Amino acid sequence: MEIKKVKRSEDYSAWYNNLVKNADLAEHSAVKGCMVIKPYGYAIWEKMQAELDRRFKETGHQNAYFPLFVPKSLFEAEEKNAEGFAKECAVVTHYRLKTDPANPGKLMVDPEAKLEEELVVRPTSEAIIWNTYRDWIQSYRDLPILINQWANVVRWEMRTRLFLRTAEFLWQEGHTAHATKEEALAETKQMLEVYADFAENVLAVPVIKGVKTENERFAGADETYCIEGLMQDGKALQMGTSHFLGQNFAKAFEVKYVTKENKQEYVWATSWGVSTRLMGALIMSHSDDEGLVLPPNLAPIQIVIVPIYRKDEEKVLVIEKARAIQHLLKAKNISVKLDDRDNMTPGFKFAEYELKGVPVRIAIGPRDVQNGTVEVARRDTKEKQVMSMIDLEHKMEHLLTQIQSNLYQRALDFRDEHITAVNSWEEFKNVLENKTGFISAHWDGTGETEQKIKEETKATIRCIPLSNVHEAGTCVYSGKPSTQRVLFAKAY
Amino acid sequence: MEIKKVKRSEDYSAWYNNLVKNADLAEHSAVKGCMVIKPYGYAIWEKMQAELDRRFKETGHQNAYFPLFVPKSLFEAEEKNAEGFAKECAVVTHYRLKTDPANPGKLMVDPEAKLEEELVVRPTSEAIIWNTYRDWIQSYRDLPILINQWANVVRWEMRTRLFLRTAEFLWQEGHTAHATKEEALAETKQMLEVYADFAENVLAVPVIKGVKTENERFAGADETYCIEGLMQDGKALQMGTSHFLGQNFAKAFEVKYVTKENKQEYVWATSWGVSTRLMGALIMSHSDDEGLVLPPNLAPIQIVIVPIYRKDEEKVLVIEKARAIQHLLKAKNISVKLDDRDNMTPGFKFAEYELKGVPVRIAIGPRDVQNGTVEVARRDTKEKQVMSMIDLEHKMEHLLTQIQSNLYQRALDFRDEHITAVNSWEEFKNVLENKTGFISAHWDGTGETEQKIKEETKATIRCIPLSNVHEAGTCVYSGKPSTQRVLFAKAY
Repeated sequence: MEIKKVKRSEDYSAWYNNLVKNADLAEHSAVKGCMVIKPYGYAIWEKMQAELDRRFKETGHQNAYFPLFVPKSLFEAEEKNAEGFAKECAVVTHYRLKTDPANPGKLMVDPEAKLEEELVVRPTSEAIIWNTYRDWIQSYRDLPILINQWANVVRWEMRTRLFLRTAEFLWQEGHTAHATKEEALAETKQMLEVYADFAENVLAVPVIKGVKTENERFAGADETYCIEGLMQDGKALQMGTSHFLGQNFAKAFEVKYVTKENKQEYVWATSWGVSTRLMGALIMSHSDDEGLVLPPNLAPIQIVIVPIYRKDEEKVLVIEKARAIQHLLKAKNISVKLDDRDNMTPGFKFAEYELKGVPVRIAIGPRDVQNGTVEVARRDTKEKQVMSMIDLEHKMEHLLTQIQSNLYQRALDFRDEHITAVNSWEEFKNVLENKTGFISAHWDGTGETEQKIKEETKATIRCIPLSNVHEAGTCVYSGKPSTQRVLFAKAY
Repeated sequence: MEIKKVKRSEDYSAWYNNLVKNADLAEHSAVKGCMVIKPYGYAIWEKMQAELDRRFKETGHQNAYFPLFVPKSLFEAEEKNAEGFAKECAVVTHYRLKTDPANPGKLMVDPEAKLEEELVVRPTSEAIIWNTYRDWIQSYRDLPILINQWANVVRWEMRTRLFLRTAEFLWQEGHTAHATKEEALAETKQMLEVYADFAENVLAVPVIKGVKTENERFAGADETYCIEGLMQDGKALQMGTSHFLGQNFAKAFEVKYVTKENKQEYVWATSWGVSTRLMGALIMSHSDDEGLVLPPNLAPIQIVIVPIYRKDEEKVLVIEKARAIQHLLKAKNISVKLDDRDNMTPGFKFAEYELKGVPVRIAIGPRDVQNGTVEVARRDTKEKQVMSMIDLEHKMEHLLTQIQSNLYQRALDFRDEHITAVNSWEEFKNVLENKTGFISAHWDGTGETEQKIKEETKATIRCIPLSNVHEAGTCVYSGKPSTQRVLFAKAY
């Protein structure tokens, strides 16, 4: 396979597409807008799933599974939600194919097998789930319900990008039901914290926690909280959202409960999700011109051992030593691969594992065996050092931890350098075009101004940071009074 | 919630439906034929997934993900496969909804958003996967490809049963590509062994390994291997299949590779799958009139501790001791729940955990605290014994192992008692109606006879057992010569 490399600095978008393909993460499929997630990409996604799933269970959530299809009459029940997703729905209208009399060997949709009611392929599952919760909830004793679902969803997108925006994607969606507004709000914020913790400590991507403006809110939510990351090209990426849904779905689906005081009340709701989009965030936060750079906490292979030899007798010695090292590190719960393929040169292997982002490479040759040393190379800094074999057992865990925190720190420094406070419209446009990144600016709080800024610059309000300090100021665009700064950026 | 119980002996089918509902495993959804898998049912499925996934990875397979949709032109490429599934395909024809001008607040399919080519919701993924493999395989060096996918699939069924037959179900599907016929056949058989091992050692369900007749083969396969279990009502259940697909899909999708000798050859294929149907097998193998009976290897809760007390000072003592026991058993990697809910009686809790199939219940009251004892109850045999607290730590692991093997042995005894060799057609019909179970009978090897037997008795050939000894005989139906016995049964 010939590998075409593109430099990040030359064409970030082409660099991204190439990397996803060359590192064997994913590829386009025969179905417009849908991707194939290849084994290496899927292995990373599985690690993300395991880390998230553990956090969901530790906070008291259980997994369940609800149908792929949503009958149209349920889909349209919560009007704002329906309106928000209607334009991107794949719709099942028939349940049978038959042989096509006009084309031997071909099939056609059987017109006699038309569904009475069309089925929407779920773009999100609030409707089908809240229709189910109605039967599960009678009294305050049935609350809270804390459920998560791992599933595929479909949103018909015209312009797609591997992992970032695809017609079908994989995600998890939490759907919880509560007796009180306070409890639902607390859940919304708790899950935002879970996402932020995961992003920073597993993906090594620093995030800003904030709340969306009304324009950017999830369709059907009263409030949308989000974590926003900053990619290497200075564009923002929404990495996860946690919605306070108020009583909107409870009202649309008539989900009431009897309180301790024997009164009927509508139930309060939240939903929250992250998706395979996180693969895009991961790639665009750490990777370089040589390929993927993986934080050790997510790497399917954390350390690769590449044996180097020419003659057969060298091979025996080197491989024996390499196996011993592998054994030693495996016992430390490190994921180690020994690449003893005979038909590839060490140089080819070095390039391959760089491309695939393996955090640490250990090379060992005949002279190393003699000297009791190995060469240890870090993927993140590309530093190499000769290390005594005796030290490996004790130093590798620490090295992986160091790499994890170095990646986070590097991304944090970059992100922090790219948050710019501006006080004039000229400055706003200048920073947006030349420096890029987040712009912290006063905004008059109106949807009209937000919309005009978006039209003129393509920048959107990514969020109102939760850590915001209120300060009086004037809107960078309209000059009207403002009480706080918000974060603008161009975004994926 | 009022729980209606039905006895197994009175109405097996109603007993099953009630149990699935009452034990909180699954329920019907608003979408015809689709189920909601509830948290407790899903937790059991997750344990199945983990056990299977580990076995797949240990045998060298990797997970990946392919699109939900199959364009019609790809779907119809392998004709037998297409013909086999055409009648049960959900078809996406449109990609947008719009507001319905005739019905304010309602939506309608947007006729302008008709797809150029219809998309079939995957009933199985051979077509989309082999279309992808064409690009992945050039040379013998690219082989084998050993991939598995965890996914939802849709087969439009008219008569559905929770877990056993639903329009949408969850499954795994392995799809492998090989250079030689021998290697593909070895893979097919290896995965059959993996399934049998899982069924017997995890589900505690004994299975017969066999090969399907041509009539019962997977559409598009050259040979279908299967594991067949026997349910308590004497009906068989196909629990997993492993298909040798020959070069059928390689030819349909033009997937060739260059051999070491530099020749072009078509690639050899296998596929294999098990689904949420296994939940049905699990339930119908072990459960009783009190509810679910779970083998410890699959139980989300292996041991439940129920504290018994009246006065507050008793509560303090009992709960303290219960916590200590929980702590002790958790340290042994046993999944233990302490149910300290105050608003339920111990009797209510006993019934609930019986219904949910928790393998072991430990009850502890004030007198137990005094005596240093507890009451241990087994779910499988309903035996109770008083045990000294000191012994718990050492005896509980062993007890769980005992329960696991007792369930298997009980199911095996039942199964073996229900394999009946018959030599005449009268005997065949008599055993089928009165004794039920598997019937081992000579068959003339023709599809016609097989079909006639099915029409007359509803019994099908479940498989030709791999362990079969060849023996000359005469067909139980046609009287024609036969070389071996095959297994007939009525089946789910």
